[in-house]
Amino acid sequence: MELFYSRDIAGGICRLDQDESGHCIKVLRHRSGDEINVIDGCGTLHRCRITSDSHKGVEAAVLESTEGWGSHPYRLHMAVCPTKNNDRYEWFAEKACEIGVDVISPVIGEHSERRIFKTARAEKILVSAAKQSLKASVPVVNEPVSVKDFIRSYSEGLRLIAYCFEDENIPRRSIREVLEGYEGSDITVMIGPEGDFSREEAELALASGFVPVHLGASRLRTETAALTAVAAVYFRYM
Amino acid sequence: MELFYSRDIAGGICRLDQDESGHCIKVLRHRSGDEINVIDGCGTLHRCRITSDSHKGVEAAVLESTEGWGSHPYRLHMAVCPTKNNDRYEWFAEKACEIGVDVISPVIGEHSERRIFKTARAEKILVSAAKQSLKASVPVVNEPVSVKDFIRSYSEGLRLIAYCFEDENIPRRSIREVLEGYEGSDITVMIGPEGDFSREEAELALASGFVPVHLGASRLRTETAALTAVAAVYFRYM
Repeated sequence: MELFYSRDIAGGICRLDQDESGHCIKVLRHRSGDEINVIDGCGTLHRCRITSDSHKGVEAAVLESTEGWGSHPYRLHMAVCPTKNNDRYEWFAEKACEIGVDVISPVIGEHSERRIFKTARAEKILVSAAKQSLKASVPVVNEPVSVKDFIRSYSEGLRLIAYCFEDENIPRRSIREVLEGYEGSDITVMIGPEGDFSREEAELALASGFVPVHLGASRLRTETAALTAVAAVYFRYM
Repeated sequence: MELFYSRDIAGGICRLDQDESGHCIKVLRHRSGDEINVIDGCGTLHRCRITSDSHKGVEAAVLESTEGWGSHPYRLHMAVCPTKNNDRYEWFAEKACEIGVDVISPVIGEHSERRIFKTARAEKILVSAAKQSLKASVPVVNEPVSVKDFIRSYSEGLRLIAYCFEDENIPRRSIREVLEGYEGSDITVMIGPEGDFSREEAELALASGFVPVHLGASRLRTETAALTAVAAVYFRYM
């Protein structure tokens, strides 16, 4: 199933931007009168009929709209420190979108080597991934903030922090166990950088209501840990 | 923790091949008398002392051996059709090794577009991934066989087949549910190509004792489906 993406859908009219229009008209050779399917990135699929087939700006009339198309029964916010190699983060974003995630926040930890994150690039990857995996909702990518600012600013739902160091005073449970004991469906998971969270970051998180979890016995890279956490949530609501 | 890999460990002597020796002596500048940690790829970690520091062939005396180092409490065989883009399969192999897998079989389905698979390249990636994730066991990669030959040749443990088409006569349960109902720890999961298994392949699998499962509501690419199945098994035994 071929999907287009547009943020410009109002009053029964859908407009594609130049990229999407070029793809629709030049590559796929659609013409006025053809039906196309357009996602709005916010959860709704629109079945539309093309009324103007300019390759610079397609216009189409909305015939039918389906809300919550390709949605999942939870709300997941992944706050993940950028990886040294950016490809690995982009891979995580793509796969997380396929499985099911709502918000991705790049967070910069005290031990983060990479402190820059290109939000626009990740957004492009997520639009492709949403189309590919037949979801009308494109995950939101936030601008990067520090781990501590993220902890302080965010206080809804079940908030989990996965870190690797052992602390006798704070026993961590497995993410599976904690998720199974949670009745709601609004979950945030914070995953640290290659060098883990600092003790101070972990302590601030715990003091702010984050629940410490582990992701099992395997030693996972940042992006693998993050995707494993997405899978844990996905299975919880399967 | 820095790990070396050797298949040549016997009689208390460990020999590194030319690649590993070059890395050990030229890059990391180890010398006779230094201690190094060597995995044998079969589950044992050997702490060794270098006795000969040639960059073409390091020899070391085994001081201590730890069996089952970095192991997991299940045995997982993933039979996965090659992806059109080979990078995606290699990504799967790397991530599956990090999380925990024992055998990877590339299987060629009737709908497979890619029918060639380079085993040697995947093996190299798996050695790196095992070192990175601190596991002494390197997953085995089999030579490719057809899906039907794989089904006919393999009959141990719990065997699952994940396919996408619905069949009213054969209700599929979720992989999570099936795994939770299984008391053993020997699992095989078969994942089809982009175009899914053929009906004939699915029927042969079911007739041969494979259990049909789904991986939830999300539409996953081959490599994402495969990794999600690995995560499902990992969580089952967490």
